[in-house]
Amino acid sequence: MTESNIVFADRNDRRAVEEGVKFAPKFDENGLIPAVTTDYQTGELLMQAFMNAEALKRTIELGEAVYWSRSRQEIWHKGATSGMVQKVREIRTDCDQDCIWLRVEMIGGACCHTGYRSCFYRSVPVGGDPAGEIDMQFEESQKVFDPNKVYGK
Amino acid sequence: MTESNIVFADRNDRRAVEEGVKFAPKFDENGLIPAVTTDYQTGELLMQAFMNAEALKRTIELGEAVYWSRSRQEIWHKGATSGMVQKVREIRTDCDQDCIWLRVEMIGGACCHTGYRSCFYRSVPVGGDPAGEIDMQFEESQKVFDPNKVYGK
Repeated sequence: MTESNIVFADRNDRRAVEEGVKFAPKFDENGLIPAVTTDYQTGELLMQAFMNAEALKRTIELGEAVYWSRSRQEIWHKGATSGMVQKVREIRTDCDQDCIWLRVEMIGGACCHTGYRSCFYRSVPVGGDPAGEIDMQFEESQKVFDPNKVYGK
Repeated sequence: MTESNIVFADRNDRRAVEEGVKFAPKFDENGLIPAVTTDYQTGELLMQAFMNAEALKRTIELGEAVYWSRSRQEIWHKGATSGMVQKVREIRTDCDQDCIWLRVEMIGGACCHTGYRSCFYRSVPVGGDPAGEIDMQFEESQKVFDPNKVYGK
């Protein structure tokens, strides 16, 4: 692939970072920025991952979500294995530009490697004075795909 | 405040973490877990922050969002200063339990310290072959509140 021509703006002026239009993302001490990915139509949170500068530039250019895999320590074009890519309909950043929000169309209808639509398929009960370990509740009743069939064993 | 009685489950069994019901959140090397906060009704991403174990337990018990402020290095009960608390309607976690999703009712209608409804008030253009610095677009036309009035100078 060819080198990106994108240049991220500098972050010297906090007011410009917060109130201006220049895109000046902040990468942490590991060179990563959190990315939050929601379904463009439903608003459902699909996943949360990280990007390095290259992944972010490729996401902007390609219009499909590209992350940095911390476990594999490599660029991760989501869907390269499963075919379930994320078409990026909108990219946003937050006030201090240290987080990326991707609003995507989830091709194939499922985001999670477990086969569920969203990675966030379980809820934690809220309130009261819970004691001991907490039991979660499944919020998705069934998997969209069988991960053994999609990824092999 | 009294000590929490919540116990987070151990993470020894990956299958249990991904497919089971025991809440076993993963904190990173700094003792933090990313938290993603969306508006319960609209699905809009409001903010992304971090929690330590105490902040997460207090969020579960209180039913209002409590984060860890990395800049101030202290527990941050969102809205303690501004009155704009986040009533937690649902808490979810993801497949490997290394992220928290809060679905909240945003009291006061604005989340961001800049005065905008969401912290993600600017979008980054997607696609093509951009060269040089990137100009973002404002997606919120006006602030909900004046931060100088809410927080003082």
